[in-house]
Amino acid sequence: MLTSIETKTRSIIKAISWRFLATLTTSAIVYAFFGRLDLAAAIGVIESSSKIFLYFLHERLWLRIKWGKKEVTPFVLWFTGLPLSGKTTIADMVYKELKQIGIKVERLDSKQVRQLFPKAGYTREDRIRHLGRVAFLASMLEKNGISVVASFITPYKEARDFARKLCKNYVEIYVKASIETCMKRDYKGIYEKALKGEIPNFTGISDPYEEPENPDITIDTEKLTPEEAKNIVVGYVKKRFLR
Amino acid sequence: MLTSIETKTRSIIKAISWRFLATLTTSAIVYAFFGRLDLAAAIGVIESSSKIFLYFLHERLWLRIKWGKKEVTPFVLWFTGLPLSGKTTIADMVYKELKQIGIKVERLDSKQVRQLFPKAGYTREDRIRHLGRVAFLASMLEKNGISVVASFITPYKEARDFARKLCKNYVEIYVKASIETCMKRDYKGIYEKALKGEIPNFTGISDPYEEPENPDITIDTEKLTPEEAKNIVVGYVKKRFLR
Repeated sequence: MLTSIETKTRSIIKAISWRFLATLTTSAIVYAFFGRLDLAAAIGVIESSSKIFLYFLHERLWLRIKWGKKEVTPFVLWFTGLPLSGKTTIADMVYKELKQIGIKVERLDSKQVRQLFPKAGYTREDRIRHLGRVAFLASMLEKNGISVVASFITPYKEARDFARKLCKNYVEIYVKASIETCMKRDYKGIYEKALKGEIPNFTGISDPYEEPENPDITIDTEKLTPEEAKNIVVGYVKKRFLR
Repeated sequence: MLTSIETKTRSIIKAISWRFLATLTTSAIVYAFFGRLDLAAAIGVIESSSKIFLYFLHERLWLRIKWGKKEVTPFVLWFTGLPLSGKTTIADMVYKELKQIGIKVERLDSKQVRQLFPKAGYTREDRIRHLGRVAFLASMLEKNGISVVASFITPYKEARDFARKLCKNYVEIYVKASIETCMKRDYKGIYEKALKGEIPNFTGISDPYEEPENPDITIDTEKLTPEEAKNIVVGYVKKRFLR
């Protein structure tokens, strides 16, 4: 992605392109009133030369005015929930819609990050450290004007609280589904494996999921469609972070 | 930091504010030519109403034109070198100047990151993983339009190559100083401690520093002042990443 600084040359060329359009109009109006092409042309010349300069000043002045620029306060949407609760699906949809609105936003997903750092580990300590680093990354993006849509199981309160502390506008989204429902959705067969003891430290089976006590948004995936869930989250963002 | 989206209302108000200024000028010119206030006023009215709309269209069209916006290609400046070679000093100065130019830039320093994650470790494996995560963070910022000034000893070629692979515009800056010079600068007494064997895995003493074979920039701190070094790096950035 490229960022940009508005140059003075751009303002000058804008002034000239506008002047061409505007003087043509003025001359036409003068001609319509007085029927004299020579005067219409003379007025056109004087008008152009004075107004190109005026337009330039007007343009540079407006570059300093913040009003009317829709401000986006950067935020971090943190989706937490059991494996297969629906975090990634909803987060993906939210990300897509936020991008469409024009918000600068980055997507962080557990799978993607762990693919890059496969030795991150799954013990309580490993996970808290791993999530801490992800929270730091999210906070750095947020600090630089980039909002974040993160989806991680984040089973421990400690890890979630750390993310809340680090990020300025941390929004905890609890994607809720009973363990029974998640097991029914077990298309990858991971719950089956976990029940057989083949995956150690599996959240919900051999490792606890500490339910969020006070999430900013709760999405009950047993009652809501992904589409409805997405709308709730995007609505929340629009209300709180867009002005 | 706030980011913004240009609203249509802003364009409309800009059109009106410009019109006020411009029509006043036109009417004055017409009056000067024809000496008739009534016609000057009539032309003013017709001109305003037609041009406010034209200006709005002109403005919205220019919002889509990229030309004349000075483009900054995001980049990652990665300072590597022995402890006390001068990385942090130069990187801080470079960061400050880049910010002044108007470039969106983030600073990552070894000390700051390790303060947040004190258990990152200092063995070869620990360091490579730690630096890998920092490189990932840098690449994420870069991808989102934020340039990065990073200063880490980064003693291993493997870690530097990983950063180069991950970041699109990775600039390796080797801050060069002999181990003797660094030891002379030992105001913190860390080399002394390392020589006594009190700090294990200390780069240059009890752990190797693999000298960069092909850095993008080499800064010889035995010959250059920090100010001169800063100018070399900023000059490089301007030439390569500002257009």
